[in-house]
Parts: sequence; structure tokens; C-alpha cells
Amino acid sequence: MARVVQKFGGSSVADAESIQRVAERIAATKRDGNDVVIVISAMGDTTDELLDLALRVSPHPQPRELDMLLTTGERQSAALLAMALIDLGVPALSYTGSQAGVITTGTHGNARIIDITPGRILTSLDEGDVVIVAGFQGVSQDTKDVTTLGRGASDTTAVALAAAVGAQYCEIYTDVDGVFTADPRVVTHAKRVPVLSYEEMLELAACGAKVLHLRCVEYARSERVPIHVRSSFSENPGTWVVDQTIIDQHRRQGDLPVEQAIISGIAHDASEGKVTVIGVPDTIGTAARIFRAIADEEINIDMIVQNVSRAGLGRTDISFTLPHSEAAKARDALKRIQAEIGFEGLAYNQDIAKVSVVGVGMRTHPGVTASFFDALAKADINLDMISTSEIRISVVVAAKDAARAIQAAHSAFQLDAQTEAVVYAGTGR
Amino acid sequence: MARVVQKFGGSSVADAESIQRVAERIAATKRDGNDVVIVISAMGDTTDELLDLALRVSPHPQPRELDMLLTTGERQSAALLAMALIDLGVPALSYTGSQAGVITTGTHGNARIIDITPGRILTSLDEGDVVIVAGFQGVSQDTKDVTTLGRGASDTTAVALAAAVGAQYCEIYTDVDGVFTADPRVVTHAKRVPVLSYEEMLELAACGAKVLHLRCVEYARSERVPIHVRSSFSENPGTWVVDQTIIDQHRRQGDLPVEQAIISGIAHDASEGKVTVIGVPDTIGTAARIFRAIADEEINIDMIVQNVSRAGLGRTDISFTLPHSEAAKARDALKRIQAEIGFEGLAYNQDIAKVSVVGVGMRTHPGVTASFFDALAKADINLDMISTSEIRISVVVAAKDAARAIQAAHSAFQLDAQTEAVVYAGTGR
Repeated sequence: MARVVQKFGGSSVADAESIQRVAERIAATKRDGNDVVIVISAMGDTTDELLDLALRVSPHPQPRELDMLLTTGERQSAALLAMALIDLGVPALSYTGSQAGVITTGTHGNARIIDITPGRILTSLDEGDVVIVAGFQGVSQDTKDVTTLGRGASDTTAVALAAAVGAQYCEIYTDVDGVFTADPRVVTHAKRVPVLSYEEMLELAACGAKVLHLRCVEYARSERVPIHVRSSFSENPGTWVVDQTIIDQHRRQGDLPVEQAIISGIAHDASEGKVTVIGVPDTIGTAARIFRAIADEEINIDMIVQNVSRAGLGRTDISFTLPHSEAAKARDALKRIQAEIGFEGLAYNQDIAKVSVVGVGMRTHPGVTASFFDALAKADINLDMISTSEIRISVVVAAKDAARAIQAAHSAFQLDAQTEAVVYAGTGR
Repeated sequence: MARVVQKFGGSSVADAESIQRVAERIAATKRDGNDVVIVISAMGDTTDELLDLALRVSPHPQPRELDMLLTTGERQSAALLAMALIDLGVPALSYTGSQAGVITTGTHGNARIIDITPGRILTSLDEGDVVIVAGFQGVSQDTKDVTTLGRGASDTTAVALAAAVGAQYCEIYTDVDGVFTADPRVVTHAKRVPVLSYEEMLELAACGAKVLHLRCVEYARSERVPIHVRSSFSENPGTWVVDQTIIDQHRRQGDLPVEQAIISGIAHDASEGKVTVIGVPDTIGTAARIFRAIADEEINIDMIVQNVSRAGLGRTDISFTLPHSEAAKARDALKRIQAEIGFEGLAYNQDIAKVSVVGVGMRTHPGVTASFFDALAKADINLDMISTSEIRISVVVAAKDAARAIQAAHSAFQLDAQTEAVVYAGTGR
């Protein structure tokens, strides 16, 4: 018996039958004696359909009004799920983000949760109701307008609510069995990872693993909310994402293998491209001016490499990666300062992919970098850029080499399972 | 320059293009210097589609959750209309019923407006915004839950808001040019009625005229809000529904013809059937017990006729009309008391129609009843039941005779226009 928050994504409630199936699952959790708070996404493609409708009315929908429109999707699925639960004899109430006390900043389309005032939720839980909260939305602190938290942010709502109502853990139901050692579509023998630390999950999410939203993991880490990522299409256990101290404790108790895996997982990201600024004068402050120009456009860059200065010429090349969608804006910003800085030219390569190995075990195993690069060399794969953190090594390779690079690393770190991973149909979160 | 409330129905905002067209119309009103509050219905068939979805999830959707679901339709159209107005350079804000301060009873599915606290609306009007309020919905005073006011009640929202913000008048945009002397589909030479008193409109609405919701007219009368019913598909003037004293004043000023029309319009209603309780013992209190049994089932009955007692037998027949949809329930209720009361049997006739002539002029023209019955007799139409009010005469005739009865009365009271009425395509309010 516990207090739990469960979040179901759009593919879990795509139609009337799915909603009834999810209701059965929730009813079982409730009948086991748990207090249950549900966070729900919009049904299937509802959000995209509403966005299409908005674009037919207005080429640039006003953000406040777009939030007012898009939030109706989650309100609908929340109400429908409550009906289905009541039909099963389980008392249930749906709440909008506003009614549930999800207080946010006023940045329409990408608001952040400031606070949760869970008065109504707690009262309903005390009265024995299953509480269903429309995800992805809140109410702005200043103007009391309806806001959205950005795409996929229902996960964040769930973790924030779990912290606010003092839940023991937060279950994120999705269309895969958890976090895998690599994308099962790339590595057929990828394994489910039973436990990850918040730090590992943050690195994996930041490096392209799609199963959890980065902001959700940050929130869980700061509020120390254990997350259980699992499939709504099976009863299998999923992946627990918890504090490293809890992992260490279970390891001491013998609940987990004493030996820490060196690498927990391999993530990849093909959504970035590489800008190279050619022939940059090798003078103090030049790099700062380049990246200031990029930052002024609010473009997030990822990896940066500055070549060794070309002998005698006093010039160098600077490369950095950024999302494809920002490439044109970055090029325009750089062209505006080309004369001032005096660089020679710009190149853009979008046929790249970033492959990252992540694991807290590498802190105590100094040979990980060598093993990773060795595996890539044996597979005849050229490394274009490299970056590292304490628990991650990322390399940029040619897009065509990405799948082989992931497979080579997966085998080198002995992550391959005995059986093929099961990939469920569905559209993800 | 005035403060006005305009209500647009679902057929006026059926798709993206319609929404843009309505936005143009509102923008023109705003540019003329008016303060504008808009009440909007859900797009086209949205409410019916949401209801279908609910019924696929739950055979008997829980009323609170059904309200949570259905209200999303108006929120969507309100947000889309705001986007379209902003694109035209007109500042606009959409509000849910709750945000607009529409406080209601807690009867989900059929709540009544208790109060309107228009703080946010008035602030937005002062700042120059067009305010768009989602119709058909409010928030319950006690539980702060989302409520709906019953189908078609966006008209009532509009009139209540007009009273709350001190609007000069309330325009109800629909798919016909106003209120006609009879249904133009029955009487091709029906005329638009330029002005009606609240009392006349109430009688017409109660007797089957669909153009305005009965509760909306009651609200307008009690708050003295002038209503202008007009078409959103044309610029034609429509029908003003106002206080009789205002009509009299304009008549004295010469703005309206001095001579009051005897009959303002003819309504008809084919949605009722007739129950006859046969062989009822003619003793004191028997009729009361029959109608108590009906009332206990919350069935609204309309007309009642008790036959003259059959000579010497001490028995009579009692007939009454009620909506078809309630007939089975009424029959069951009566059968349960048959033994106790001792009546002989029950009959039900659903092939009837009620035809009503309405006009304040009949107060001062005693021959109206005679003229009406004379016209029906000349058309060889038998009268089954009769009921009257101070400004209305209703008769029940065989359903097959209804159209001829309406046409005969329309001609007899010289209501026929020189030209045929224009009937617009559309689904009504």
C-alpha cells in the first residue's frame, strides 16, 4: 500500500478501447489499496490535429490562444478516463492542470512549473477517489491564463505531482518496456536496463534517448522522486531511475549485483548537424564573439572543437554541432559578423550522428575511452568530434556509420542480450 | 458606439474559413468603436462527436466528467476565433466560462446561471480587447467543478453576460434572418417579424419556435436585455425582442406602425403525443392522483382535457399531451396506479401536432379565436384539443393536417408576404 503517480502517454489512450484497458489497469492498482494519481496525455494524434486546425485559422497562432486550444486534448482524455473508471466501480475525478494547482511561468507554449498547490488533489485522495490530472498544462502565476509546458512534458507534470503529494514513486507508462542498453531498432540484442541513476538517465536523455523527457529527469533528481518507466502494453517490470545512493544501498543488501556495469547504455542522436567556421583569425576573443553571436539568437549548441592553429598562418577552424532546425539561423548570424571577424568561410555538414556511451562505472574504470575508440577503429569508423563528461563519452561519426558504431560499442561492452528485444507498435510518448 | 454582446452558433463557426469570416464581422463591429463581448458555441458537430466518443467509453457517462469533456468544444472555438481576430489586428482574449465568472448551480448537464462575476471581462474591455467567452458552460458555486447549461444554452450565456457587463443589447447570430410569422419551410410566404415583445417570444418559443431558447428569453425579460436575432450569413436586419413598453414608445414616436398586428406569428410543435386515460371514476381527487403520479416521474405535461362525464356511468376520460420521449415512462407510472384508481384503460396517439397563434394584439381583438377556428373549419380540419393564454391560442390537430392548418391561419390573419422567404442552409443554433 502506497501513494503512487502513474502517467499514461497518448499511445496508451489512443481510442475508446485503450482508455478502457488503461482504466482496468488503474483500477487494479487502486484495489491493491494504493492512493492513485494519474497524469494523462491527449489521445493519440489529438494535439497534432488541433495544431493543424490552428494553422488553418492562423499562420502564426497567438501563443496564449494556442495554449487554450491545445490543452483541451488532455482535458478530454482525463474526463473519458474518469468515466471509464467510474464504470468499473472506482470513484474518480478529472482535474485540469489549473484545478490541480499546477502553477507555472507565463511563457506560453513552454512554461515551467513554479509550484504545485495540491489542495484539491489531497482532499480527493482522502475521500478515496482516483485523481486524474490533465498533463502538459498549468495556470500562469501572474495572469491566471492557461499555459502548456512544451511537448512531451506530461512526464514532468507527473514527477512534479509525485513530489507535491508525497508519492513513493512515479510510474511512466509508455510503449516500450523501459530504457534499453541501445535503441532496439538498431541493436536487436539490446537489453532492458533494470536500474539507472538520475545522472545516467540525464546523460542518456541529453544524448538522444527518447524514453524520458530531460526536464522530467532533472525534476525527479532535484525532488528525489523514484521513476519507474514501463510498458502499458505488458506487465513486465521496466527501468527504475533512482538516486545513486539507493542503488548502492541495494547493492550492499544484495538485491542488485555487486559489480556495477561499466556502461549502462548507448544513446544516439541524428538530429544535429555540424557548422565549421573556416579560417578564423587566431586572436584572443574571436571565439567568444562567434559564440556570442550564436547565443544572441538563442541557439543551443552542443559540441565544440577548435583545430590546432595552422602553422605560421595565424588562422584556425572552429566546428560546433547544433540542431538541424537552427542551422539556417546560425549561418545568418555568422554571416552578419563575417566582415568584422574576418573568417574565411562557413561549411555545414548535416550527415552526422552523435553516439554516446554512458555509465557511472566509467568513473572507476579508466580504460573505457580506449575500449570504445578501439571498438570503433576495428569497425573502421572515423571519429569526427569527441566530448566527454565524468560518466559519458560522445563521438560524432558520419551518419552512415552510426548504426555500426552503436553495434560495435554494444558488443565491446558486453551488453548484448541472449534474446532479441521486443519492440512494441505505437507512436511513443 | 456601444457595448454589445454577440453570440455565434455552431453553424457560424463550422470550419476554419467560417471562423475567419466571423472574425471579419466582429472586427468591423469593434472598429466602429464598440466594446465587444462574443459568446461562441462549439464548431459544427463537435458536441455531438464528443458525446459519441463518451458513449463509446461509457454507456452512461458520469455527468461531472461528461461536462468536463463537452466544454472543450467551446474552448476550442473560442481560442481559434481569438487567433483569427488577432491576425486581423484586433486584440482579443478567449475565456472559459469559469474564467469569465459564469457561476452556476451544480446540476451537471443542466446547470443554471446563479451569478456572473465579470471582473476579468471588464478589465479586458477597458484594455481595448475583444472578449470571447466559451458558451454553454460555467463553474459550480459549491464544488468549483466545470458545468454545462444544457444544449443550446449559449444563447442564455450571451444574455446573462449582456446584463452583467451592462451591454446595450445582445445580438444572437443564427442561420435564419430572424423570427418569422411561421416556419418558412411550411409557409413559403412567411415574413420576418421586425419586433416582438418578450411575452410573445416566450409563447412562440414555448410552442415550438426553435430560433431562440426559452430560458434565454426568460432571462432577457427579467434583466430587460434587448435581443437582436439575425443571420450570420447576411447583413439584413433581424428580429428585435424587447420590452412591450419600448415597442409602445416607438409606436408613439412613429418609428413603428401605429396599428399593432393582431397576430405576430404562428408556431407549431410535432414533438408531443396524447395520452388518454379511459373510464376514470368521476370522483373527487382522482384527477389529482393521476397527475401526481406523472409529476413524481418529473414528466412535464402540456395540455389537459377532461371530457364531460358520461351520463349515469360516473366515469369520464382524461387526455393530456407530453413529449414523445416521455410517453413510455408515463404509461408505466399510470399502470402502476390503475388498480388503485380503477380506470378502464390507456390510449396513446403520437400522430398529433400543436398549432399556436401568438400576438399581444389579441388582448384588444376579441374575435381572434373565432377567426382562427373559422379558418381551420374552412380548411376542413378537426380540432382535438384547445388551450389558450392571454396572448396565445393553441389547438391540437392530426399531424397530417398541421401544415394546412398553419397555412390557413397564416392567410386568415393576413400575414402572407409578397415574396417567398429565404431559407438559409445550416444546422441552426
